[in-house]
Amino acid sequence: MPSFEPRDPDFETRIRDSFAQQQMMHTLGARLAAVRPGEVEIALPFHNALTQQHGYLHAAAVTAIADSACGYAALSLMEPGREVLSVEFKINLVAPAKGEHFVAVGRVLRPGRTLTVCTAEVHAEQDGASTLIAVMQATMIAVSRPKNQIVEKRA
Amino acid sequence: MPSFEPRDPDFETRIRDSFAQQQMMHTLGARLAAVRPGEVEIALPFHNALTQQHGYLHAAAVTAIADSACGYAALSLMEPGREVLSVEFKINLVAPAKGEHFVAVGRVLRPGRTLTVCTAEVHAEQDGASTLIAVMQATMIAVSRPKNQIVEKRA
Amino acid sequence: MPSFEPRDPDFETRIRDSFAQQQMMHTLGARLAAVRPGEVEIALPFHNALTQQHGYLHAAAVTAIADSACGYAALSLMEPGREVLSVEFKINLVAPAKGEHFVAVGRVLRPGRTLTVCTAEVHAEQDGASTLIAVMQATMIAVSRPKNQIVEKRA
Amino acid sequence: MPSFEPRDPDFETRIRDSFAQQQMMHTLGARLAAVRPGEVEIALPFHNALTQQHGYLHAAAVTAIADSACGYAALSLMEPGREVLSVEFKINLVAPAKGEHFVAVGRVLRPGRTLTVCTAEVHAEQDGASTLIAVMQATMIAVSRPKNQIVEKRA
Repeated sequence: MPSFEPRDPDFETRIRDSFAQQQMMHTLGARLAAVRPGEVEIALPFHNALTQQHGYLHAAAVTAIADSACGYAALSLMEPGREVLSVEFKINLVAPAKGEHFVAVGRVLRPGRTLTVCTAEVHAEQDGASTLIAVMQATMIAVSRPKNQIVEKRA
Repeated sequence: MPSFEPRDPDFETRIRDSFAQQQMMHTLGARLAAVRPGEVEIALPFHNALTQQHGYLHAAAVTAIADSACGYAALSLMEPGREVLSVEFKINLVAPAKGEHFVAVGRVLRPGRTLTVCTAEVHAEQDGASTLIAVMQATMIAVSRPKNQIVEKRA
Repeated sequence: MPSFEPRDPDFETRIRDSFAQQQMMHTLGARLAAVRPGEVEIALPFHNALTQQHGYLHAAAVTAIADSACGYAALSLMEPGREVLSVEFKINLVAPAKGEHFVAVGRVLRPGRTLTVCTAEVHAEQDGASTLIAVMQATMIAVSRPKNQIVEKRA
Repeated sequence: MPSFEPRDPDFETRIRDSFAQQQMMHTLGARLAAVRPGEVEIALPFHNALTQQHGYLHAAAVTAIADSACGYAALSLMEPGREVLSVEFKINLVAPAKGEHFVAVGRVLRPGRTLTVCTAEVHAEQDGASTLIAVMQATMIAVSRPKNQIVEKRA
């Protein structure tokens, strides 16, 4: 894995602030577990409120932490003042999301001034064992702070 | 768009039962709006609990209703006794998810005995206008009822 | 399907010129069959030189015409002087590529100043019947003419 | 990277035979460079016949070797008598395909009795330097030998 030099020394603060503003992450119960240049880890404990029809973690929750891990991995290498949006992603759900705890690790494969390509892996942890349950390949875009953001709606 | 003949006359009941068991859909506030052979519509009102860092609907919520719409569109054409799992999907987020209300329509492109390929579109509705915000292409698989489902966890 | 207004009245000439420069399209035997604002059609006759191990058209050839149809559909809506590159695409191969003739139709789903999202369908034609064999979802980017192009290599 | 145990001791012969039957690989000038359990490498020299409009290697050629490397990586772990087909793949083209020589390495991420998930990386080599130009995530399916293959067409 390549090592990356961040362009913004405060990248971790910027990422933690942005994560804290995502109400969806609170709703899911997700937590920013590790922030490194080009690599971000998000942890999510199992909860009944997040299940699909067989009682496992819903693909939407798996996808949510994988996408966010990719997005913040990309943001960790962007210039100060930039924000990140997901252009698109593709996820393979390779095993049932059965576990007590889930961890998504997002990594930058190729950083760019506009577009950054990332991958993520999600593992389920149960009884001390870790199982790969999903892999993602994602394209992220650096944007200036959106002018028409609806901050008042979050109040 | 092709018209499909369902192999299970009770497909709608089967889909509504499965949807009702998805705790994640309750948590998001999503609703099964329409069920037709090969086409399923899921509606989701905006809620602060589902936002990303700019106050818009989080990509995870957009993805959740698109994936479920694809999955149930696939299930609508499967034989009785089969269930559906997402193998993989790819989503493009083509506009900010800004709206009062969101609708995902999933459609079967090609049904198969094992694999079914679907697409979904998600629109945001605000002030009477409807905007395309996401498109998905997904692969679903028909499975027998998983033996090791953790039903007790849902109790 | 939405109708689009081209920003460059000479879009068709621009696309035909670009297509003619793609040696790969000559090697495959592909032909630009139709060019409309936001929609491009590429035709490819079957040839033994393009087969996979079972004697059908190779996925690479199917992908080549789908990707090019998407790219030129995107280019048809771009400003004069812009060129198009594929950022990424995803393709589902939904039936064996068995036919005498293949047609890819690429359509713009959402045009943008930088990124354009497209879809394509590929049909196989045999004995008067047409079968859907592949569907693609693709992201294209508008670029200025690459400075470091290696035109001398094409001489 | 996990290490895999092949179920067929003759996996390499099986792959080399299948590759030799792909007329498309001959047309491109691609060569099977390495075959290991769960990992296959395909090499392709630059050729003018394979270029896009700027004189670089066409995305179709990049995709062809990545898809084949994934497919054969999957086949390397399948039971004797099985064949492999691509269900779908997604590729990000992360840098211009500018080089004298190209190498695709496909790896199995998760093998399965029916579906196998793979990734591939493609590098361009020029003047002794190697550059990542594409990454793929793919789903492969194990099939019995297709009954209706058109072997006579290859004669």
